[in-house]
Amino acid sequence: MKLDKLIGDRHKERPADCAIDSHALMLRGGYMKYVANGIFSSYMPLKRITRKIEQIIREEMDKIDGQEIMFPVVMPAALWEESGRYESVGNELVRFFDRNKNPHVLGMTHEEAAVQLVREYGQSYIKYPFMIYQIQTKFRDEARPRGGLIRVREFTMKDAYSFHTSQEDLDNYYEKCFKAYEKIFARVGIPDVISVAADSGMMGGDISHEFMLLTPVGEDSIAICGNCSYRANLEAAENIIENIRDDISEPLSLVHTPGITTIEDLCGFLKTEKEKTCKAVVYQKNADNSYIILFIRGDLEANETKLTNYLKCDIYPAAVIEHSGLCAGYIGAYNLDNPNDKFTVLFDKSLEGTNNLVCGGNKTEYHYTGFDISRDIDNPEYHDFAKVINGGICPKCKKNTISISRGIEVGNIFQLGKKYTETMKMQYVDSDGQSNYPIMGCYGIGVGRLAASVCETHNDANGPIWPMAIAPWQVHLCAVRSDDEQVKNTADNLYNELTQNGIEVIYDDRNVSAGVMFSDADLIGVPLRVIISPRNIKENCCEITSRDKSLSLKYQLESCKEKIIETVKNMF
Amino acid sequence: MKLDKLIGDRHKERPADCAIDSHALMLRGGYMKYVANGIFSSYMPLKRITRKIEQIIREEMDKIDGQEIMFPVVMPAALWEESGRYESVGNELVRFFDRNKNPHVLGMTHEEAAVQLVREYGQSYIKYPFMIYQIQTKFRDEARPRGGLIRVREFTMKDAYSFHTSQEDLDNYYEKCFKAYEKIFARVGIPDVISVAADSGMMGGDISHEFMLLTPVGEDSIAICGNCSYRANLEAAENIIENIRDDISEPLSLVHTPGITTIEDLCGFLKTEKEKTCKAVVYQKNADNSYIILFIRGDLEANETKLTNYLKCDIYPAAVIEHSGLCAGYIGAYNLDNPNDKFTVLFDKSLEGTNNLVCGGNKTEYHYTGFDISRDIDNPEYHDFAKVINGGICPKCKKNTISISRGIEVGNIFQLGKKYTETMKMQYVDSDGQSNYPIMGCYGIGVGRLAASVCETHNDANGPIWPMAIAPWQVHLCAVRSDDEQVKNTADNLYNELTQNGIEVIYDDRNVSAGVMFSDADLIGVPLRVIISPRNIKENCCEITSRDKSLSLKYQLESCKEKIIETVKNMF
Repeated sequence: MKLDKLIGDRHKERPADCAIDSHALMLRGGYMKYVANGIFSSYMPLKRITRKIEQIIREEMDKIDGQEIMFPVVMPAALWEESGRYESVGNELVRFFDRNKNPHVLGMTHEEAAVQLVREYGQSYIKYPFMIYQIQTKFRDEARPRGGLIRVREFTMKDAYSFHTSQEDLDNYYEKCFKAYEKIFARVGIPDVISVAADSGMMGGDISHEFMLLTPVGEDSIAICGNCSYRANLEAAENIIENIRDDISEPLSLVHTPGITTIEDLCGFLKTEKEKTCKAVVYQKNADNSYIILFIRGDLEANETKLTNYLKCDIYPAAVIEHSGLCAGYIGAYNLDNPNDKFTVLFDKSLEGTNNLVCGGNKTEYHYTGFDISRDIDNPEYHDFAKVINGGICPKCKKNTISISRGIEVGNIFQLGKKYTETMKMQYVDSDGQSNYPIMGCYGIGVGRLAASVCETHNDANGPIWPMAIAPWQVHLCAVRSDDEQVKNTADNLYNELTQNGIEVIYDDRNVSAGVMFSDADLIGVPLRVIISPRNIKENCCEITSRDKSLSLKYQLESCKEKIIETVKNMF
Repeated sequence: MKLDKLIGDRHKERPADCAIDSHALMLRGGYMKYVANGIFSSYMPLKRITRKIEQIIREEMDKIDGQEIMFPVVMPAALWEESGRYESVGNELVRFFDRNKNPHVLGMTHEEAAVQLVREYGQSYIKYPFMIYQIQTKFRDEARPRGGLIRVREFTMKDAYSFHTSQEDLDNYYEKCFKAYEKIFARVGIPDVISVAADSGMMGGDISHEFMLLTPVGEDSIAICGNCSYRANLEAAENIIENIRDDISEPLSLVHTPGITTIEDLCGFLKTEKEKTCKAVVYQKNADNSYIILFIRGDLEANETKLTNYLKCDIYPAAVIEHSGLCAGYIGAYNLDNPNDKFTVLFDKSLEGTNNLVCGGNKTEYHYTGFDISRDIDNPEYHDFAKVINGGICPKCKKNTISISRGIEVGNIFQLGKKYTETMKMQYVDSDGQSNYPIMGCYGIGVGRLAASVCETHNDANGPIWPMAIAPWQVHLCAVRSDDEQVKNTADNLYNELTQNGIEVIYDDRNVSAGVMFSDADLIGVPLRVIISPRNIKENCCEITSRDKSLSLKYQLESCKEKIIETVKNMF
């Protein structure tokens, strides 16, 4: 490929609206173009990168007996009604009517399609286990697409679905797929991806893992234990609290706290610690806008995912309005007026058995002191609704060694159980003639996000540094001073020879300065650069450098073809 | 791949609702599954076939300097508003609103996306010409999906877009792409595809060609000259008429024709020929339901495409209602009451200068005889609105050698002109500093339809006969009596050896009868079959047959691996 024919523009300047490097560099380098919010077109370099990633994924899925199939992007609503998700999934699911007024959806995931495809095939236990996968376009109407290819609305995904007749068999296969994922991430150039326990969200099922690439720009938070192997997405991480109860419980007392609106001010005013306050966090249910009041220790934050899972419904941070019956800013657990249980009142474990707390007085500018939750509230139920914090207690080794890191989720695997096979009535007959529902697993990797993640961790200020296995080309050949006949001929010959030997070469023979040439090459990020220039020719050699600067060599012109081919192979 | 693990069921019986062989065989053979009207999932064999077809297309597109890119499936309506097609395209275009109430469309073609991608890149003449292509899912909300993969709503398509600074350059590239298409069709196994002149339809532009696979089950009609090279889609084929005028014009006379409702009855009743009748064909405009009355010679049929192109609007066959002002069944060109031109009245060329015609009397049960169109109508304008018929006159060589054949359109190429670059304001600066709009071409191939077309022409009653280049596997290995240890070991070894040598083998080692084994193999349609059986082992050989029955050999076991590899290569 001649560089002067490569479609797409390259830019020196970082675009203003890019929060992360991969987004900025992919725009600067002519990899992709914005079409609409969370929707991009890809130019040739990105398309070549994603095709290579897809091939690596395909190979590893085939190795664990996956069968590549293809589901439709557009599915009839009837299929999603079978599983109940046509109703239960929020407006990330695009719903539309076709010309005959029949409701359809755009595939954001394909559990329903998977069950539909194999429902008749899998009627006997002897067909099991099996796994099907596809690499296909998906659309998820994200509320807040961001970070270039990190969070988009339209994306290419590998999604796999396995079917089993026992939990043990699923466990085995889950482990196999886990290892295949590790191989995939290693092969595309990010071997340091870690796995974390995850929340299953709308997928259902109990056990799930996310594969996380740790990076400060990641949008996920992960609790990692510094002492043992415990790692979990903050959404799913259990919060362990050792509650302290004072020996003597003070009596309850309503005190005037004029002008106090924050926990900090309150602690200052009353000379107490955040840990001795009982904070109210208010949400509302999407379905009926009714209020949920969570009481939690003042130094902790609510984990919305835990709340959603407990309540089994979607919620949003509340706007406490007048006439709601709540006293905004002064909501307290004691003496809360809750006629007919119109509010859902929840207590976080961090309050269990604690006393001498400050809490809202349910009266403007008043708080209670001396609140003893077990004394003053009738049989409160405690659940874990809090976000884990830095220095928190590890649920596994029980040491205070939890730290919070940021990461990009580059893959996920789920044990789905029988959620879809039961709702969609997929059954098989066992060896003893009994009918059963198969157990499912599902396994996803977003291709574009993976490309962006590699870029995020493999770049410098001048551009991406693509690993050889997924680089758009393998060699970037620069003919510096291509107006020099000898340079042009030598470079032309080398280009032809390398290409004939199956090396993927992007060839820059433009009559531009070496500076322009090299900055373009940096943006394209090909791992190996070969430079032919008048000076090199005089020395009867060509210059070889690697994009990551670890390599800088000169080869004799006579032997350079073989040397370059060898070097490329060694860089895989 | 072991056959006993291949997901999908195979059936002996032809499904009841299949009109064509490829549809029936692909359902019987476990290639695909119905999900909704015009929407299918693909099992592994079909996915492997389409991937091979895609790779062949990719190679030929790359050879003519195409750059593989990727457009989104979901596009903002704003993009289609730029070209005017958000309004002008009918309800084949799926329109929907996202969560923020912004209108979007599902890509059914990508001219708008192509211009959007290269609008900034292509600002200087030195960047031209260039071509971009993608292989991507499309959705077209067809009114009448049918024929399995022949006419679907969701499909994978290769669509390519070229940009040029002169008509001559487009002509050259169009010719190049034409030849690339011929190579693609030859490589996938249907070299006998013909090209025909086509109507450009909603794509716009003047010149376009369709590539047609002639088959009686095709849904397109094609006019082919038996004498010269003229070939055109019936939609686009010019109808040439030599009109005959009698020497003497009879006088007009209104005659009572009781109970006469068809042209046949009328001709019988009045003792005249169909060629001497003037028939009214009535349509209505989609936009306002107003009537269009086409007068045409009684033996000819109206060509709706020609009418649509002339009127520049969508139409549908009329229901002539009471109080419409039209006398249903008796509409005539003479004395037609058309106040304020509320009806659009058109005349086909077949009536030009004719006389002594029978036509409707605009009065129930009455017709005129002796109608002389040039005498009785004021300055009628004639246009070509008729369908070409068998035995018609060739527009090129002028002989009566036109015959009508059926065909499947497996590809199309269009010269789009400046329709999209002008409406979407894509300009380049020429060498003399002048701003200009680039000229575009576009080039499509439906991947699934191509697979089905190959199946349609390469099959027998037992299943498809896939050409080696696109077959799901290259060798179908049957271990007949796999309970015989020697058979099993020999077949296992051969399977491993062939696989290690890069041969794609589907291996049937099930303990089933040879009959079941061979009928499954017929449905999978792999071109080369290798049989290991106790009898063969006794003779120290294996049996090789080809799916098309042209080959039936026995090879010594010692040398069979090499022989099979060689045979596979020779079948490409």
